[in-house]
Amino acid sequence: MRTYLDCYPCFLRQALEAARMAGADERQQRAVLDRVLDVLRQIEPSSTPPEIGERVHRIVRREVGNSDPYRAAKEACTRQALALYPRLKARLAEADDPLEVAVRLSIAGNIIDLARNREYDLEEAAERVLTQPFAIDARAAFREALFRAGWVLYLADNAGETVFDRVLIETLDVPVIYAVKGGPILNDATMEDALAAGVDRVAEVVSTGSDAPGTILSRCSEEFRHLYDEAELVIAKGQANYEALSEEGPKAFFLLQTKCPVIARDVGVPVGSIVLKQGGE
Amino acid sequence: MRTYLDCYPCFLRQALEAARMAGADERQQRAVLDRVLDVLRQIEPSSTPPEIGERVHRIVRREVGNSDPYRAAKEACTRQALALYPRLKARLAEADDPLEVAVRLSIAGNIIDLARNREYDLEEAAERVLTQPFAIDARAAFREALFRAGWVLYLADNAGETVFDRVLIETLDVPVIYAVKGGPILNDATMEDALAAGVDRVAEVVSTGSDAPGTILSRCSEEFRHLYDEAELVIAKGQANYEALSEEGPKAFFLLQTKCPVIARDVGVPVGSIVLKQGGE
Repeated sequence: MRTYLDCYPCFLRQALEAARMAGADERQQRAVLDRVLDVLRQIEPSSTPPEIGERVHRIVRREVGNSDPYRAAKEACTRQALALYPRLKARLAEADDPLEVAVRLSIAGNIIDLARNREYDLEEAAERVLTQPFAIDARAAFREALFRAGWVLYLADNAGETVFDRVLIETLDVPVIYAVKGGPILNDATMEDALAAGVDRVAEVVSTGSDAPGTILSRCSEEFRHLYDEAELVIAKGQANYEALSEEGPKAFFLLQTKCPVIARDVGVPVGSIVLKQGGE
Repeated sequence: MRTYLDCYPCFLRQALEAARMAGADERQQRAVLDRVLDVLRQIEPSSTPPEIGERVHRIVRREVGNSDPYRAAKEACTRQALALYPRLKARLAEADDPLEVAVRLSIAGNIIDLARNREYDLEEAAERVLTQPFAIDARAAFREALFRAGWVLYLADNAGETVFDRVLIETLDVPVIYAVKGGPILNDATMEDALAAGVDRVAEVVSTGSDAPGTILSRCSEEFRHLYDEAELVIAKGQANYEALSEEGPKAFFLLQTKCPVIARDVGVPVGSIVLKQGGE
């Protein structure tokens, strides 16, 4: 997905919120905004939002001197999600169609989103998403691709959401490689967060080698790009992965909730939708 | 009021909305944003938001080649308010304390705000504000200043709100000079809008000589500045006049609803409050 003009004010807002989250004083906040203004002034029309986001959050970390502003928030999200884990498993145990329920729970976990500084209710989201109709519904194609795939590459999104991903992975009958960010960016899951959620017990956890907020293949390690090329099926979680990969072909399936109006419009659904969408060219 | 860092994303959002309101195509919208980014990069820390707003909206008008993007919207607001006028007058006719009711109605009219592209319900606002407690209540000082003043300088805010201002002016026992913007800016009232609301029947209508969104004295005509200096009592409507004049001394009384969270915090009240505040140094 390209960067829309509506994203410009949002990047400034995000930079300011992230700077404050990182403990910036007023002078540092202003320095962050000035540098982000410079970045926005030079945006190439073809840039995707995660490419800009990577630069914005790098500015925040450098100007404020805080390498991981969302560390405490991420740990809190993971703890909160782990506390729900037994109830999610109980839901699955009584399900007629465990894959259906696990996919829905994985999408429910995507309600976590500190980039928009949203309030969210994880329990409410889990209940709602279990019965909410899909706004885009590629479940049949997804089941078929899953049936044929020898293994799955699973692209993580946020810390805490990792626990919901683990529940889906435990329901799949194929080996999973779970890819997390190569360094701290927003509240995105890194290796540390995946381990805290126990994902390593059910999947091989690898790094994309990049700290962009979505998986921008050209910014990932050669090793990860090779893995992506080899994969027959990619489960891509969350809005930023949609932004980065929506035009990278049909082997990717995007599982997400639309929280941003610009992304929702690009997907073609209302804000607050649940989406299981197959990638295009 | 100084420009807060939270205003930066808001200026970009406002510029984009105003450009679209003016009929800009995508290329023009991008050109507007680029020029606004340049302005934001050079903000002096002491600038007030109306000073930046003046430059932002001048960029929109020039880049898009539309000298009055809000013309149709302003005319619609005035028509809507005029349709309510008989009911506002009926309210006044039955009031025990007409000044109290007229002040409240004038503040009710301040719900109109296209800078934030808000939906508003003028009738609901009029009913609500008639009984809503003041978050800041300088009514006693205002009555006293009014009692002593030989005449009043009344600074208009938005088109349509002008009709509510007329109702207050009709209730005052002193001559009023009603000052409107010197040229189109957002949905602010100009001479044309004041005449459409019939304010000229109850007050002398003058121009500030400036098309900034609030009354920035240094940008006004010499004639208007002289008028301001001479005035014993100034009624300043709306958020932008608060932003521009909050530190210009105690002869100004600000009548407004807080719609912006940054201004609300500066005033020291919640968003959605009604305010009658005396100016300070």
